[in-house]
Amino acid sequence: MRFSIPRNEFLTRLESVSTAVASKTVKPILSGILFRTAEDSKLELIATDLETSIKTYVQPSEISGTGQFVVDAKVLLEIMRNLPDGKVFFEFQDTNLVIRMEKSRFVLPTMSGEEFPEVEPAQGGWELETSVTALEIMIDRVLFCAAKDEFMRNLNGVYWELEGGYLRLVAADGFRLALAEEKTNQNLEDHFLLTLKSMKDLQSSIKTAGSDDMKIVYDGTRVGFYFDGTEMVARVVEADFPDYKKVLPKAFKTRVVANTSSLSDAIRRASIAARLGSDSIKIEIKEDNMKLIAKSPDHGESSEELEIKKDGEDLIIAFNPKFLLEATKKIDTEEVELNFVDSNSPLQMNPVDVEGYLYIIMPIRLI
Amino acid sequence: MRFSIPRNEFLTRLESVSTAVASKTVKPILSGILFRTAEDSKLELIATDLETSIKTYVQPSEISGTGQFVVDAKVLLEIMRNLPDGKVFFEFQDTNLVIRMEKSRFVLPTMSGEEFPEVEPAQGGWELETSVTALEIMIDRVLFCAAKDEFMRNLNGVYWELEGGYLRLVAADGFRLALAEEKTNQNLEDHFLLTLKSMKDLQSSIKTAGSDDMKIVYDGTRVGFYFDGTEMVARVVEADFPDYKKVLPKAFKTRVVANTSSLSDAIRRASIAARLGSDSIKIEIKEDNMKLIAKSPDHGESSEELEIKKDGEDLIIAFNPKFLLEATKKIDTEEVELNFVDSNSPLQMNPVDVEGYLYIIMPIRLI
Repeated sequence: MRFSIPRNEFLTRLESVSTAVASKTVKPILSGILFRTAEDSKLELIATDLETSIKTYVQPSEISGTGQFVVDAKVLLEIMRNLPDGKVFFEFQDTNLVIRMEKSRFVLPTMSGEEFPEVEPAQGGWELETSVTALEIMIDRVLFCAAKDEFMRNLNGVYWELEGGYLRLVAADGFRLALAEEKTNQNLEDHFLLTLKSMKDLQSSIKTAGSDDMKIVYDGTRVGFYFDGTEMVARVVEADFPDYKKVLPKAFKTRVVANTSSLSDAIRRASIAARLGSDSIKIEIKEDNMKLIAKSPDHGESSEELEIKKDGEDLIIAFNPKFLLEATKKIDTEEVELNFVDSNSPLQMNPVDVEGYLYIIMPIRLI
Repeated sequence: MRFSIPRNEFLTRLESVSTAVASKTVKPILSGILFRTAEDSKLELIATDLETSIKTYVQPSEISGTGQFVVDAKVLLEIMRNLPDGKVFFEFQDTNLVIRMEKSRFVLPTMSGEEFPEVEPAQGGWELETSVTALEIMIDRVLFCAAKDEFMRNLNGVYWELEGGYLRLVAADGFRLALAEEKTNQNLEDHFLLTLKSMKDLQSSIKTAGSDDMKIVYDGTRVGFYFDGTEMVARVVEADFPDYKKVLPKAFKTRVVANTSSLSDAIRRASIAARLGSDSIKIEIKEDNMKLIAKSPDHGESSEELEIKKDGEDLIIAFNPKFLLEATKKIDTEEVELNFVDSNSPLQMNPVDVEGYLYIIMPIRLI
């Protein structure tokens, strides 16, 4: 089996598929990528960590013979990244893959394609049409709020919810929550939870998508994402995401509108003492003024004042400044809205006059 | 004591002086910067880790009162980096430093200026005039070859040698050696050894120099570097640098000239199997051809061929590819010269037709 393919085109596909390769594994074959001849002179590339799998196709310039083999993803990527663009020649013979380009030559050991775990596609269930770009934006808006700790199984991922004609992504880590939604043109009602690893794989692999069409298929245990000739299948987490709607505040007593970048600068500077010390920033809202202040015994005091537009009551409340800052950075409107209930209730931060995403941040109790 | 100063100007000086601040220290005062009113309405800034010290001056827009205080370098840098350009107001009262700019306000605790260790300047001895740019280039050419291990006292730094009208820097780690020299207009004969930390401090602090004049003063135990109103004083290491001249090959049997970037690309690709595995690359020089090859049981084989100009004998020799690659990256001429004695002797790599710097790399014994 031989084939040749332009390096840049091949590298894009290789990078997309290799996001699913297991990073730490006791099964060596999972650190590899399966190559298999397919219909129409195409070549199938598959990677999996048994939880997420990605399959894509490349169209070689020339191909002869049929067969399959598994080759270490890291070495192959390293080679491809170090070659210039141009036609690369591959030859699979006995148990070796020989790669040539001009005066460069590589001989890689391979593993048997037959031992590569076959991943079942998501079958039956519903299908949803959406857009790669829309999904990319939603993932970016929520992913940073997911719990990083793998042992928090129900929070270490993103909750997908289809409801009332919307596709909604929700992530939370116990201190904050992010929600992003998009209208769909189907009226599906369902939900599932994907791990942070699956979400990151999805995020990386859709980055290289050359077209915007995306189809999502869910069969109750697996979700399939189909885009630009690539399919990613992720196993859903068997754990219950908390009832996030309980956390969403229903009525507010103080509504503040501020310039997003001024607020972000103010938080960044006012939290200098907090970042180096106590991890808490106090916010005092009084008339049309917001004062942000952090203190630490070793690093002194940092404070900022900010002009705001305010409706409702004055308020004193405290937060972990990192959570405020990370949420502010994702707000892409000129103005941001901060909605408060009281000093002990969560803050809702959202863009002004734009629906579709919001952040909930738990306050720190004032002593 | 009060003063005000434009933020950008102040930050440049602050970054230059803070390179000498002790990173890990049991004496809290060494993590600070001493501010002291000086002559001509200037302000002196000093930092030291007891081994290296840097003193510089800033010219405030306004200043009133006299005094001195020590303030934590990390907090101050964090504040300055987060403020926009514009006039910053400082007020030292009681034991606090208050910093204001528009609606930002910071109160920092200070330490007593009197407890700050006074650093003796290098006095007496010789003085040498040189250029900041020339020194910067020389440091860049040798520093990466210094041993990283602090316990290798005589190699964990850079050897300075004045000889025959040249200023020479030499660094070595037991596997390779770098040498860079510049003509001086004085005929001094002397040498000293500076730690890697002192060298890195020097490298960082001269980066911000606004003028090219540099004066070096050496009094037998301390070296002073004077540039652009800044003075850095470094204690010399009391250890003997090995007799490096013994390592420099005297006569060569094979001389190879190659295109520098082609050689660098070839090493990078041919060493893929080595980098992921055995850390050894074999070079076969035969007529006008150089073959580079690396093998690893798990990662296969990577090889390259390169056209070269050769004088002398054919040769087979092996190296750690990292050492070859790092040296090649510093060669800034189009062509590079590789001078070999035999398979078991060090390689000398140097630019073609440019005097002033060279690399010596020990081979790995072929099995």
